[in-house]
Amino acid sequence: MKSLKIPEAAVTRISTYATILEEMLGSGLQVISSEKLAVLCGVNPTQVRKDLAYFGEFGVRGIGYSVPGLLGDIKKILGLDKQWRLGLVGVGHLGSALIANEHLTRQGYNFVAAFDTDPDKIGRILPGDITIEPMSALKNSRQNFNIEIGVIATPASAAQRVATRLIEAGVKAIINFAPVRILVPRGCYVKNIDFSVDLNNLTFHLTQSNDASNV
Amino acid sequence: MKSLKIPEAAVTRISTYATILEEMLGSGLQVISSEKLAVLCGVNPTQVRKDLAYFGEFGVRGIGYSVPGLLGDIKKILGLDKQWRLGLVGVGHLGSALIANEHLTRQGYNFVAAFDTDPDKIGRILPGDITIEPMSALKNSRQNFNIEIGVIATPASAAQRVATRLIEAGVKAIINFAPVRILVPRGCYVKNIDFSVDLNNLTFHLTQSNDASNV
Repeated sequence: MKSLKIPEAAVTRISTYATILEEMLGSGLQVISSEKLAVLCGVNPTQVRKDLAYFGEFGVRGIGYSVPGLLGDIKKILGLDKQWRLGLVGVGHLGSALIANEHLTRQGYNFVAAFDTDPDKIGRILPGDITIEPMSALKNSRQNFNIEIGVIATPASAAQRVATRLIEAGVKAIINFAPVRILVPRGCYVKNIDFSVDLNNLTFHLTQSNDASNV
Repeated sequence: MKSLKIPEAAVTRISTYATILEEMLGSGLQVISSEKLAVLCGVNPTQVRKDLAYFGEFGVRGIGYSVPGLLGDIKKILGLDKQWRLGLVGVGHLGSALIANEHLTRQGYNFVAAFDTDPDKIGRILPGDITIEPMSALKNSRQNFNIEIGVIATPASAAQRVATRLIEAGVKAIINFAPVRILVPRGCYVKNIDFSVDLNNLTFHLTQSNDASNV
C-alpha cells in the first residue's frame, strides 16, 4: 500500500467502482475495459486509471480488468473484505430506518448495539436481537460490544457530546446523521451526512437548466 | 453564467462553502480569505478559487471575500435563494425522519405532499398539514402539488417504478434513498443516496491506518 494521501473524492469513486463491478459480476461479466467501467460510473477513463494507480497496478493493457479480481482488490483497499460492527446512538425514525437497512448488512455493516435516552425505549429489543441500552452504557461501548463505527442519529444538540463519549470509549470512526458538523480528534475519522448538500446538487441543475432555457 | 460542464464534486464543495459562510456570518464575520475558507472546508485554497472561477469573479486580491456577498452569490448559483417544493414517496421510518427534518426546511426544502401504498397510512395527516395520498395520486403530483423534487423512500423494489411515474407527471429532479440505483431520462436529474459509500470512506481510513500501524 502506498501513502494515505488519497483524496476523499477518489475513495468515494472507488466505492462506486465496487458497486458497478458487483453488478457486472452478478450478470456474469468476467472482464471489463476501463472505458466501459468509466461510462457506467459516470467518470472519464483517465480518472478510473488514476484512482486505481494510487493503490498499485491493475488490469492488462488492451484487455481490461478482471471483474472478480479488481473487485476483490478494491474490497481489500476499502476494508470491505471483513464484517464491521456498528453502534447506533438515537433510536428515532432515522435510527430505526438505519438499523433495518438490509443493504448495509449485505455490505458487511452490522449493527451490534443501540443506545437511547428515552426510558420507554431502553430495554426494548430491536430486530437482530439488539437491546436498547441507556446512554450511560456508551462509556463501555467499545469493551462490551466491540463497536468499530459509531452511528449518530440523535438530535443536533446531543451529537457532539455523543461523539466525544464514543471516542473516549475507544471508537475511532463515526458517521453522523445529526444536522450539525461534529469534530473528532486527530487519528479518529468522522463522516458528517447532510442531505441538503445532495439536494443542492439537484437545485443547482434545475436552476442552471432554467437559466439556460430562459436565455 | 458560464456553461453547465461543472464537475459534481465542485458543486458539492460549493455547498460546503455555503455552509461554512453561513456559520461565519452567524458569528459576525464580514470578510474571509480564501486560505481561511479553504482550511475550514478541508480543501486547498487553489481549489476554492478554481471552484468559484466557474461562475465568475469573486473576492478582492489581498483582502478576501465578502462573507455576505459570496454567500448570496453562491446561494443564487445553487438555487438556494428560493424555496423548493418536495414530494415524499414512502412514509416509513426513513420518510418520516426526512419530513420531520427541520434542517431541510431551514435550507428552503419544504415537503408539500406525501404518498404511500399502505391503506392504513393513506389519509393520515403528517406534521406540516400534509395528508398522505395514495400512489395513484402520483400521476397528478406536479399539477396538484407543484412538486419540483421527488424524494423516494420506498423499498428498493418500488423505487424505479415510482421514479418513472414522477417523471411522467413532470417532476424533473429526484433524490433516491432506496438502496438501488435508479435511472432518469436526459434532462432530468437524480441523486442516488447510498450510506454504504459514506461508511466505506470510514472503513478505508480504519483499514489503512491499521495497515500503517502494523508495518
